[in-house]
Amino acid sequence: MTPHDLLDGLRSRRPAALARAISLVENGAAGFEAILEALHGDLGRARRIGITGPPGAGKSTLIERLTQAYRQAGLTVGVLAVDPSSPFTGGALLGDRIRMERQSLDPGVFIRSMASRGSLGGMATTTGEVADVMDAFGFDRIVIETVGVGQSELDIIRVADTTVVVLVPESGDGIQVMKAGLMEIADVLVVNKSDRPGSDRLRQELEVALGVRTGNAYRHIPAHHGADVSGQTPRRQEAKDGGSGGAGAEGRGGAQAVAHAPPWEPPVVGTVAAKGTGTDELVEALDRHFGAQEGSGELERHRHLRLEQRTREVVDRAVRRWTWSAEGPRPTLDAALGDVAAGRESPYGAARRVVRALTRGGA
Amino acid sequence: MTPHDLLDGLRSRRPAALARAISLVENGAAGFEAILEALHGDLGRARRIGITGPPGAGKSTLIERLTQAYRQAGLTVGVLAVDPSSPFTGGALLGDRIRMERQSLDPGVFIRSMASRGSLGGMATTTGEVADVMDAFGFDRIVIETVGVGQSELDIIRVADTTVVVLVPESGDGIQVMKAGLMEIADVLVVNKSDRPGSDRLRQELEVALGVRTGNAYRHIPAHHGADVSGQTPRRQEAKDGGSGGAGAEGRGGAQAVAHAPPWEPPVVGTVAAKGTGTDELVEALDRHFGAQEGSGELERHRHLRLEQRTREVVDRAVRRWTWSAEGPRPTLDAALGDVAAGRESPYGAARRVVRALTRGGA
Repeated sequence: MTPHDLLDGLRSRRPAALARAISLVENGAAGFEAILEALHGDLGRARRIGITGPPGAGKSTLIERLTQAYRQAGLTVGVLAVDPSSPFTGGALLGDRIRMERQSLDPGVFIRSMASRGSLGGMATTTGEVADVMDAFGFDRIVIETVGVGQSELDIIRVADTTVVVLVPESGDGIQVMKAGLMEIADVLVVNKSDRPGSDRLRQELEVALGVRTGNAYRHIPAHHGADVSGQTPRRQEAKDGGSGGAGAEGRGGAQAVAHAPPWEPPVVGTVAAKGTGTDELVEALDRHFGAQEGSGELERHRHLRLEQRTREVVDRAVRRWTWSAEGPRPTLDAALGDVAAGRESPYGAARRVVRALTRGGA
Repeated sequence: MTPHDLLDGLRSRRPAALARAISLVENGAAGFEAILEALHGDLGRARRIGITGPPGAGKSTLIERLTQAYRQAGLTVGVLAVDPSSPFTGGALLGDRIRMERQSLDPGVFIRSMASRGSLGGMATTTGEVADVMDAFGFDRIVIETVGVGQSELDIIRVADTTVVVLVPESGDGIQVMKAGLMEIADVLVVNKSDRPGSDRLRQELEVALGVRTGNAYRHIPAHHGADVSGQTPRRQEAKDGGSGGAGAEGRGGAQAVAHAPPWEPPVVGTVAAKGTGTDELVEALDRHFGAQEGSGELERHRHLRLEQRTREVVDRAVRRWTWSAEGPRPTLDAALGDVAAGRESPYGAARRVVRALTRGGA
């Protein structure tokens, strides 16, 4: 299939073309950026919903229910599940996936899993790019699931219009969640398995925590975060940006943008996904959030920040590729690598030489 | 403390200077690369031992035992524990850490934890840089612990001379381990809690698997992996490098280097770390591995590859910093970002313009 055929296939809404385009983007295969570029004008129609929470919180079942509800309302749904796939626990999520993929017999539903293999920094960009393909294909809702390890939960705000944090009574107390910065990223909190002991207590803790919460989630999106090798979290990143002008501090604009709209108060929705309880309330909360953000201009601002961030990541990726290509600063690079290998130079001195060559235009 | 004082402190082996230098490096604070550059000539004395395995395998207790054994042999030990610190399970490892840090009352032992916050791509570089500081400080052994999420286990071969994979009977069957690529990275396999049911079976499975294993771990180190945003695993990376010349394929040399030394056969060591059983056998296996690698020239080759990889990562980091700095391609960048924001350009078109400007030397 040529890129042209692939684009034709996407525009004629052929599922095979969608699957192929997503694989291309996921693997960074030849021509993937040309596809994304061609689709760029078709973006923005879908609502992107990010769902995160600890393993075992029932996210997949909840997404099944959500998908059913959207289908009943005549909406099409793309689901993108990002698995951290630990070498030690890799197979654990497979059952969920297979179960979920039964829904995909419905042509109005498309389900895709991606193995993140723990590389969450670059994964956020790839996840956003795959969501773009789904958006351009024409899904009304895109649901992005990340399973709880480290940065991935905080990264989800970089790809979603609305972020849902799913907890269960067993997943521990609200204090842990607050400390982890999840209260700041949640637009909607779900207490799933809310028929179990401890769920009332968890809801109360979350509501108390929300009462003392100020501002809203969007101000926590750093202007330029994902492509940073140091891989700081948004909050550490902000601290760093405001810090002593260290290595990571240059060249980030836009962090000053602060929301002036009335802050959204995240509701706490109780669900029992296994029984379908609470799904309507969740759908309604998601609609309310999207409507509020749209009305206040926050949606546009958030999407604008996301686009700027994406651009920076794509630029970084392209510059890195260029650096090591035949068009890049080869003579300086090769000499520097040789000097490091021979013990005449440190990696840091080598990097300085390369940057000096770039500044002189000596590429 | 000025960088000069800090270097003086490190060279006089003052623990406060060590702690400060590590913080500087971990946070990427102003001057961290100058410190690393100054220390570059002092590296290579320490043996670096990487220890990985699933949560609950008893890695920390095993490291305590290993540390005791090294201390009894008159060797100093630096321990670097890299925690993935999930927002959901963040506190779980604290108990181990506090217990381990009791050993640090001994001035011949230095224990440090780093929160990776899941960003494993850049984390491997930072982990290597912190290990460098410990190496320059003069520790005889540096033990690096990573706890099992995704890429981190596979990344550990990028920082360690010897990689130990710790399993327990409960952690599931050997097939899972083989599928996850852990057999390829393990120089020594440990079955901890080997007094529990199922441990004989696990050992047998591992030994059978080792029998069919070919080659050795080092050929799995990709030449340029860590700084790649796409965050592929070593094996996927290799597949990609050999692929159709896609986005990630340019500019990586050295992947062709293949070991010619007789392959090391990883032993399976049974331990009961809680009781101290098997520690001597483990120490002996580690010594044998290091000796074999040193004798065959593999150690030097491995360290050489590691240095080349580090250089590439440091160059990428510096080039990225430069791109967004005042010395970088500002006019082109600003115009491109503006055009994307105004809807006149896609992120991919913007990136192409920046790269074109670099190639023309129009920085």
